[in-house]
This record gives sequence, C-alpha cells and structure tokens, in this order.
Amino acid sequence: MIRVGLELLTERSFSATGVDAVVKSLGVPKGSFYHYFDSKEAYGLAVLQAYDAYFCRKLDRHLLDVARDPLDRIVAFMADACNGLRRFQFRRGCLVGNLGQEVGTLPIAFRDCLLSVFNGWELRLANCLRLAQARGDLSSAADCKAIASYFWIGWEGAVLRARLEGGVAPLQIFSQCFIAGLPR
Amino acid sequence: MIRVGLELLTERSFSATGVDAVVKSLGVPKGSFYHYFDSKEAYGLAVLQAYDAYFCRKLDRHLLDVARDPLDRIVAFMADACNGLRRFQFRRGCLVGNLGQEVGTLPIAFRDCLLSVFNGWELRLANCLRLAQARGDLSSAADCKAIASYFWIGWEGAVLRARLEGGVAPLQIFSQCFIAGLPR
Repeated sequence: MIRVGLELLTERSFSATGVDAVVKSLGVPKGSFYHYFDSKEAYGLAVLQAYDAYFCRKLDRHLLDVARDPLDRIVAFMADACNGLRRFQFRRGCLVGNLGQEVGTLPIAFRDCLLSVFNGWELRLANCLRLAQARGDLSSAADCKAIASYFWIGWEGAVLRARLEGGVAPLQIFSQCFIAGLPR
Repeated sequence: MIRVGLELLTERSFSATGVDAVVKSLGVPKGSFYHYFDSKEAYGLAVLQAYDAYFCRKLDRHLLDVARDPLDRIVAFMADACNGLRRFQFRRGCLVGNLGQEVGTLPIAFRDCLLSVFNGWELRLANCLRLAQARGDLSSAADCKAIASYFWIGWEGAVLRARLEGGVAPLQIFSQCFIAGLPR
C-alpha cells in the first residue's frame, strides 16, 4: 500500500489522490485501507516517511562513498537523480517537493514532517561539504550548513523545471553552476 | 475576472480551482464567465499571461534601474520579492512555479506557455548579467545565459521553500549564495 502511494504521490498531488485510487491500484476493498490507516492523512505521512527512508539510503550511498572525493559524490548523486527522472519519463518528481508545493492546503502535520525531512538531507550534505573543506577542496571560510541549505532549495527547483521541460538539461545546468559556484 | 484568477491561482492549484470559485468571488453568475472565456483552460492561460506581464514589469523596474550597478539590481529584485511574499503571509507563491508543478495534469498548451514565460525572464536576467560582465563585475568567461537559467531554476525552489517554512530565510540564503557563487 505504501509502494502504491509512492508511485501515485510522486506523480500527482495529495489532494488529487483519493483513497479510492489507492485501493483500486491494489485491487483490494476500501475496508482494508482503513484496517491499516486511520485516515488519508496518516497514510500520506507514512508514505512520506517511507520516501524519506528510501531517499536517505540513496543519499548515503553517494555521499558516504569513500571511493570518490567528497565533491564528486555530490555530482554522482545528481547524475543518478537525472537517470531516475528519465526512467519514469519525468512523470515522477520528488515527493517532498510535490507535498511542499501544496502544503498550504494540507493538514499542519505535513509541514513539520517536510521541514524535518529537509533538515535530515541538509545535515547529510553539510557533512559531505565539511569533508571537502577538511581536504582543502572548499574554502575554510565556507558556511557548509548554508551551502547545503542552498543546494536543496535549488535542487527542488531543478527537479520541478526538468519535469516541466521533460528533459534533464535543468538538472545539468544546476549541477554545473552549483559546483562551479562553491567557494574554493 | 483576471485579477481574481491571479489571487486564487497564486494560492492554490489550477486543478483545485473551479470556475465556481471564480464567479463566487466576484458575485456574478456563471454565464458571465463563459461570456468572456470559452473554457477554464482559456481562462487559465489568460491569467498566466497577465501574471507574466505583471512580473516582467516588476523585473524591468529592477533590472533596468540605471541608479544601481547590474548585480545590485538582481539583489534588489530578490529583496522586493521577499517583501511580496511576506505581504501575503506566504500564502501566495509564483503562479509560474505553481502551474509548473502541476503541468503533468494540465492541458498541453500550458507547458509551452510556461516555457516561453521562463525564456522571457531568462533573457532579461541574461541581459543584466551581460551588463555586469561589460563592467568587469563578472568574469568575461561567464556564460550569462546558463547563469540566468540557473537563477530561475533555483529561484522557483526558493519561493517554494519560503512558503513551506513560512519565512524569508530560504530566499535570503538563495540570494547570498547565488551572488557569492557568480564567476568574478
């Protein structure tokens, strides 16, 4: 049920996705949905947590990859994400970006959950930037926390634009300009 | 009718906004909507064009402001946008970003229109960056078109994040890191 939620909610908005669509996808009666989840809100939050767990594993795979220099790990994550978007013909975006866009109309619990997800991603990236800093690949004056925050702010914009254009060019421009703009 | 559309569609999705909500806001009968517009799609596109015209005027006011150095004009635009978001308590976002997010479920005409709007904004910013380049404030090797594209990619992410957080910090981080990362 969570897996179906990940498919549906990376493609379309939470508001536009009914419990009916979920149970129909699975071919199960509606009652079985409410056996597992008290409400659509509880379900949405569970899907968001599953997405975060999946995404953090992906991030760790890249950002903790000792075979690469720290800044190259960030580039590798972005290249991997390009392939991911291409694989689903740009229909599927980032669940966190999608839900963030409609947060004004979602139950308040979503806002806190989304902010905490971004915090986790930011922490991982800031640690990777600090490794680059320790090696001298980044200026010792660089504010790694602020740069990590800047990355995720822009990254969500890049995913949005890639889906609009139906191509990876925005992700590539973002990747090149972000890396080129790092304080050395 | 366009003005009401600007209010409604900067706050919520096109899919979630019915013709009923538009006519109800105005206190007019539904027939008068269809007197002016053939369809909800035609109305949405007209609102998007009105938003673009408004936004281009705002951009030109800043980016053509000879009282400021070119890079300072970009900073001034961002500061102005912060105030705009604050004024409506972060309820209203960027119509182009909002529609871009739901483009997968919109009539195909929206995609072309949104891409052409971004092109216009990119052109204006690239011209401003070229002025900075001519003054020596930007490296002569800088690709102004790519940097302008990078700006709008990240900017939409920053607006999205500011609305999620209900504060201007993401716009400020974006502004600082973008300007700091420009090739000098």
